[in-house]
Amino acid sequence: MPTPPSRLKARTPRGFADRTAADIRATEQMVARIRRVYERYGFEPGETPLVEYTESLGKFLPDQDRPNEGVFSFRDDDAQEARSAGGATGKQGEWLSLRYDLTAPLARYVAENYERLPKPYRSYRFGWVFRNEKPGPGRFRQFMQFDADTVGSQSPAADAEMCMMMADVMEELGIPRGQYIIKVNSRKVLDGVMEAAGISDEKQKLAVLRAIDKLDRLGIEGVRQLLGPGRWDGGKEGEGDFTKGAGLSGRQIDNVIQFMSPTAGADDSGSIAKWASWIVEGSQVGADGMRELDQIGTLVRAAGYNEDRIKIDPSVVRGLEYYTGTVFEAELLAKIPNEKGQPVVFGSVGGGGRYDGLVGRFMSENVPAVGFSIGVSRLQAALSALGQLDIKAGSGPVVILVMDKARIGDYQKMVADLRQADVPAEMYLGESGMKAQMKYADKRDAPLVIIQGGDEKAKGVVQIKDMRAGKEMAAGLADHDAYREARVGQEEVAEGDLVEAVNRLLGRGERRP
Amino acid sequence: MPTPPSRLKARTPRGFADRTAADIRATEQMVARIRRVYERYGFEPGETPLVEYTESLGKFLPDQDRPNEGVFSFRDDDAQEARSAGGATGKQGEWLSLRYDLTAPLARYVAENYERLPKPYRSYRFGWVFRNEKPGPGRFRQFMQFDADTVGSQSPAADAEMCMMMADVMEELGIPRGQYIIKVNSRKVLDGVMEAAGISDEKQKLAVLRAIDKLDRLGIEGVRQLLGPGRWDGGKEGEGDFTKGAGLSGRQIDNVIQFMSPTAGADDSGSIAKWASWIVEGSQVGADGMRELDQIGTLVRAAGYNEDRIKIDPSVVRGLEYYTGTVFEAELLAKIPNEKGQPVVFGSVGGGGRYDGLVGRFMSENVPAVGFSIGVSRLQAALSALGQLDIKAGSGPVVILVMDKARIGDYQKMVADLRQADVPAEMYLGESGMKAQMKYADKRDAPLVIIQGGDEKAKGVVQIKDMRAGKEMAAGLADHDAYREARVGQEEVAEGDLVEAVNRLLGRGERRP
Repeated sequence: MPTPPSRLKARTPRGFADRTAADIRATEQMVARIRRVYERYGFEPGETPLVEYTESLGKFLPDQDRPNEGVFSFRDDDAQEARSAGGATGKQGEWLSLRYDLTAPLARYVAENYERLPKPYRSYRFGWVFRNEKPGPGRFRQFMQFDADTVGSQSPAADAEMCMMMADVMEELGIPRGQYIIKVNSRKVLDGVMEAAGISDEKQKLAVLRAIDKLDRLGIEGVRQLLGPGRWDGGKEGEGDFTKGAGLSGRQIDNVIQFMSPTAGADDSGSIAKWASWIVEGSQVGADGMRELDQIGTLVRAAGYNEDRIKIDPSVVRGLEYYTGTVFEAELLAKIPNEKGQPVVFGSVGGGGRYDGLVGRFMSENVPAVGFSIGVSRLQAALSALGQLDIKAGSGPVVILVMDKARIGDYQKMVADLRQADVPAEMYLGESGMKAQMKYADKRDAPLVIIQGGDEKAKGVVQIKDMRAGKEMAAGLADHDAYREARVGQEEVAEGDLVEAVNRLLGRGERRP
Repeated sequence: MPTPPSRLKARTPRGFADRTAADIRATEQMVARIRRVYERYGFEPGETPLVEYTESLGKFLPDQDRPNEGVFSFRDDDAQEARSAGGATGKQGEWLSLRYDLTAPLARYVAENYERLPKPYRSYRFGWVFRNEKPGPGRFRQFMQFDADTVGSQSPAADAEMCMMMADVMEELGIPRGQYIIKVNSRKVLDGVMEAAGISDEKQKLAVLRAIDKLDRLGIEGVRQLLGPGRWDGGKEGEGDFTKGAGLSGRQIDNVIQFMSPTAGADDSGSIAKWASWIVEGSQVGADGMRELDQIGTLVRAAGYNEDRIKIDPSVVRGLEYYTGTVFEAELLAKIPNEKGQPVVFGSVGGGGRYDGLVGRFMSENVPAVGFSIGVSRLQAALSALGQLDIKAGSGPVVILVMDKARIGDYQKMVADLRQADVPAEMYLGESGMKAQMKYADKRDAPLVIIQGGDEKAKGVVQIKDMRAGKEMAAGLADHDAYREARVGQEEVAEGDLVEAVNRLLGRGERRP
């Protein structure tokens, strides 16, 4: 039915989604489990507002060329701010933005409260972040992240802990060992590779990072093109848009490709030995990175985390520009059907790394930091597909039907008694008849329905219908009489015994006050 | 120390606040209790995004004259949207806004999913809302609301239920009976009063509502001025700004004032009788409003809620413009110190009402609705002051000190063992010595500290220091030796018994796996 033009169309902006009760309950289950792990590691909750000064957030998103730089921004027209912003901008205040991640606001928070906070400051936070990007299937403009960060420690033990914690999170969420992997790499080693190869231009270095980051999607040949002159999106010359490349020489490209290519069968010390011997030779930063990766490896192995859980992978670079050292990625190896129904390796569900320069944007001191961020919505999609987030059926409220509108005071009293005993319950509040009321109870996932018509009232009894037992029948019932003849999962109790009977049927006798 | 101009200042925009672990834990406690009541009443969770089309939200805020109408708004530059917005606006997309409440988005949601939803649709939601207003003490631009709504029922039983539920919430939060009141009124009765007094201009009617809404702050004389020609903010002519009044005649003002003035000692039926006899005479809408209030009163009394909990108060009007019938307000009567330390009645912590026209903005059908919104941050402030949100001390992680940096692998192993047994634990990750590490553990609210220096290692033991017992001593300790001499709350156990001893000291032996 077309809506008349004068009426508003009810719709959400693209990339912004509503959530149902089942979605919310699944997220809560998941978040509670992640949180349990974070707290077990000694992290405490923290929270920053959703709106920050644009300059506080900085420009670290992977796709800087997009309109508005990927961030939702607007002017502050708070009078005092506008005044202090001074003459040049007239009456307009400073730019505000919706946060695009939880890390940039954390850096601002630590700098603002540095004296007061315990150091190192170990905290976790979860909440919505926003990206002003082109929305698509599974790609939202508002999505949830769940981060943990250690600020004020330069010890590789802090990095090692992040990796182990992420492995523990995966297992706490029911993902069996072997079905996930925490991949570790170091931007310092990458810098060493580039330094050794004579790549020193900052823009060129950034282009190299972005090219490597696309390995999953484009394969090794695509990355090779992006390291060189560039690549046509369609894969062949002239097809689709052209993305300009990093412009490396042939030898430079070979070095980068050789660095990121896995050595068949090599363990982590093998990878490090390979780099040490020929790639990062003569680069101090490269040597530092290798030593840190080696220390992380030693620590996680000592704690019993082997290469089936935490492993060096030189192709991991992470998109955000603020990383300065170690970078991590948590990947699900389980195959899960994609939009086309084909089973594919699910891939990344979170990542992180060291961002030693981020707090220093606000302070004279340099404050090292390392963190990890879980993409909650994406991980939830995977867990649902894996059957790890089941919500029990029959979890709705007990519904008291309204058989006689003149007696809603009586029904209201029944509801009040049940609630008093901590039983979720409600009286039907619509205008419809018996059949629609039963359908309503079914839609609400009610475990029990309470019925008291004139006959029952005269006898001082109520009927209790167990919807879990007789669910398949409910939809087909034509009227009250037909319903009463079909006494599947139905029992009659004295009015005064209602609460006791409901508690018994719900198997929660012990919870009565 | 002044920050050099080239460095960013770490700050939040005014009216946006960070939250500490204690704040977050207190909110969670409170929200869990409120939620328990909502679920007991048969409401299920729902959620909408923080960003909506501006036109979906509508213009219902009390202070429409402010810049940007009290709402944070920005253009959508999603390409597809921009294209469909067409030529006149060029490449720019539609206006988006941060939600200013949870009710307008709910109306959009119900309209968009009407066929699918059970009707009546009973749901609750909590989350952040935003107001582009002048921030001040206790007045934030981002704050949390926790709402419950019944959409699709025109029955006064739905209104009655809201009132009872709010009373139950207050008691679940530990506010004793007599320390709160749920006030009920009806915009229809108010409309009846105005109709009977010959006030028919819509702007004038709105001005009357706003004047009544200010009774708490301005007193009856202030309201009288605002109903008439207007009022000087300073209280006397020429002092402060002038607020234009509703421009009523003397007789009209008397009628309104008489309506909203409480009749000393009158119960609810007394109030209704008073109105019926002389004010809303001849007004159909007024008569409807009185009948609804009467029905609500009958229902809540039948369920055992008396006038010490739910009571008619004709001065309640609520600021939002979308209300069409019943309006409610939950007030704390407890006296709580204000900013100046003077004990004052805390006042409103939430409110709501009927908004029968809001869903109809999107649909051809008219969909009646009633809801209630709790101001979470404000209520939390009150509960903290009343001592209802205590967080237990000693709730931080067990901290393992680093006595010898060469042995962090060993310490890491201890931490891993504790975590394996589900004990929140961490190894100190900073660079400082013994004294600073003890201070750190104290700041983290650690219940226990684990120490293993060279001597202990040689003997195969660890020291466990109970911080809860010896907290007062920790700050004064000069060095390791002095510390070890003061053996208050300290015990030595074999390395292999660490987990067992920690569990015992934390009184959680039964939680071991």
